[in-house]
Amino acid sequence: MKMKINCCLIGKGNVGSCLLELIEEKKEALKHYYDLEIGLIAIFEFDGALINQEGLDLSEIRKLGKDFRESQYWKSDITAIDYIPKLNLDICIETTPTNPKTGEPALSHIIKAIEHNIDVIASNKGPFYLKYKEIHKLANKNHCIVKYEATVASCVPTLSMKQNLLANEIISIRAILNGTSNYILSRMSSEGVDFSLALKEAQELGYAEADPTLDIEGYDAAGKIVILANEILHWDLTIDDVKINGISKITPQAIDLAKSDGFVIKHLAIAENNRLIVEPRIIEKDSPLNISGTLNVIEFQTKRAGPIVIMGRGAGGYEAASAILNDLVSIKLSRQKT
Amino acid sequence: MKMKINCCLIGKGNVGSCLLELIEEKKEALKHYYDLEIGLIAIFEFDGALINQEGLDLSEIRKLGKDFRESQYWKSDITAIDYIPKLNLDICIETTPTNPKTGEPALSHIIKAIEHNIDVIASNKGPFYLKYKEIHKLANKNHCIVKYEATVASCVPTLSMKQNLLANEIISIRAILNGTSNYILSRMSSEGVDFSLALKEAQELGYAEADPTLDIEGYDAAGKIVILANEILHWDLTIDDVKINGISKITPQAIDLAKSDGFVIKHLAIAENNRLIVEPRIIEKDSPLNISGTLNVIEFQTKRAGPIVIMGRGAGGYEAASAILNDLVSIKLSRQKT
Repeated sequence: MKMKINCCLIGKGNVGSCLLELIEEKKEALKHYYDLEIGLIAIFEFDGALINQEGLDLSEIRKLGKDFRESQYWKSDITAIDYIPKLNLDICIETTPTNPKTGEPALSHIIKAIEHNIDVIASNKGPFYLKYKEIHKLANKNHCIVKYEATVASCVPTLSMKQNLLANEIISIRAILNGTSNYILSRMSSEGVDFSLALKEAQELGYAEADPTLDIEGYDAAGKIVILANEILHWDLTIDDVKINGISKITPQAIDLAKSDGFVIKHLAIAENNRLIVEPRIIEKDSPLNISGTLNVIEFQTKRAGPIVIMGRGAGGYEAASAILNDLVSIKLSRQKT
Repeated sequence: MKMKINCCLIGKGNVGSCLLELIEEKKEALKHYYDLEIGLIAIFEFDGALINQEGLDLSEIRKLGKDFRESQYWKSDITAIDYIPKLNLDICIETTPTNPKTGEPALSHIIKAIEHNIDVIASNKGPFYLKYKEIHKLANKNHCIVKYEATVASCVPTLSMKQNLLANEIISIRAILNGTSNYILSRMSSEGVDFSLALKEAQELGYAEADPTLDIEGYDAAGKIVILANEILHWDLTIDDVKINGISKITPQAIDLAKSDGFVIKHLAIAENNRLIVEPRIIEKDSPLNISGTLNVIEFQTKRAGPIVIMGRGAGGYEAASAILNDLVSIKLSRQKT
């Protein structure tokens, strides 16, 4: 693969904007270590796109901030779906907000890119917990690389752990993949407050959405454990296969009872014995899964080498953008060998 | 690279024996997932070798146990150094006990293999904390792949984390890389016993050697942090550059004092601000580095995505053998692309 990689970014929200900043910040390092120059030739929004086949000037766009539509390169009323085939793209980076039931519009963008032999990096999980198999089948047929590390635990390596554990037999996975519900349970445990108060606090701090259903009822974590199990355990499931229970009925009394015996209640996402489960579970206080706050943690139970546990920040703009950039370098390294 | 990889194993101790078992156990999986068949054509010991150019029958050798010298394939008084060039080898796997001051005999084995364009996997750290640069220079010249994941934290991915964090700027590393000293400090903290009693207990349980100097005085962890920093932070240091302090002077009083303020004393290996340090440090009780027992933990502090922490078992035969096998598959995958 040539040194300069032509990319488009779909979605200029928080993650997309952080990515622009990181691409600029790491420009010299990427050239030095990986002989990689990222040419961003299009940034799509819902109502148009910034397009320059020679490569957009990122510092100029960043200076414009929310006024990016004033750039000379802004074109109104064009869509990613129409333009993906027309641009000379190597990689399509998808970061739009996704409808959790349909995976759209990300799903259509991903499919369109693959159909035109363009590699894909995606940060939203909808398409993958709904159509994992279909996306991979199409990608294999068209010899495309599809990467989506950010979908599971943001910057915490989970899907890419496959390459670190190539010969390990992984028996099961237990994880905390939703920072919002973990924050709420942590506060209920440390402060003795009830669920609704902890939720309100989380909302005030920006850790929980106005409608927190997807997080506290386990749907968010369920989507993530589907992707993780499919990728690492070679399963072939969708979110409909997950048994899901939320945390809204957990009482301070239940937490106290667990605590008095040296346990804590955590909202675990579990892949074991061919089953996917998201539900509150009692774990030992000393368990490596007992993390507090908004962190994510993933335990890979191996047959011959015990548990291997990785943790870090599971959300945030720079965090997700870091995961995307790691995927991008990884694609570049794979391509230069072929 | 062809499907069948010819390997030799140097050292049939605990790690080597576990590796033989894993190679047999995973035979079908390696073929299925990676199109990989491992042909082990020689197993070297200090006084001779088992050799069969067609591939040794591992189940037969394992049945012989310690009587492997009775095999028809045993040849006395031949050495790895002499025979490495004569065999048709793709990969040389080095697992001999290493002199910590010279890195021998592993260092000579590794160099001999590279000189004959044979890829190398090693499980002992001596050669790498002493001659990191020299080994890599020679390997680059001869287009050899040299892997040594097991040298730092056994089966816990540390060196290979480089490929998960390709675009992350890693600012510093803090780690617990010696299970013996961590076990001793954990017991002193939980039981209030003094250093010598905790050491005696660790020795009785087989966690500490009869001469525990390398572990408790920090030399073992120092070697590991050298390798980790050179690999992940692109440094170029040797063990002589590490400031090393052991744990033998830590008193139960010091531990109690820390505890009363919500802290614990841990024997940390640190790479930050261009300096390598192994010494007892006070960390917060809630720190992810506060692991107990013989586990290892590594915290990669990234510039843009916070800390990423990985933990697991840092020692053991199957654990090290798992790391070796992961390295082996990784070499196979790299080679088939070239």
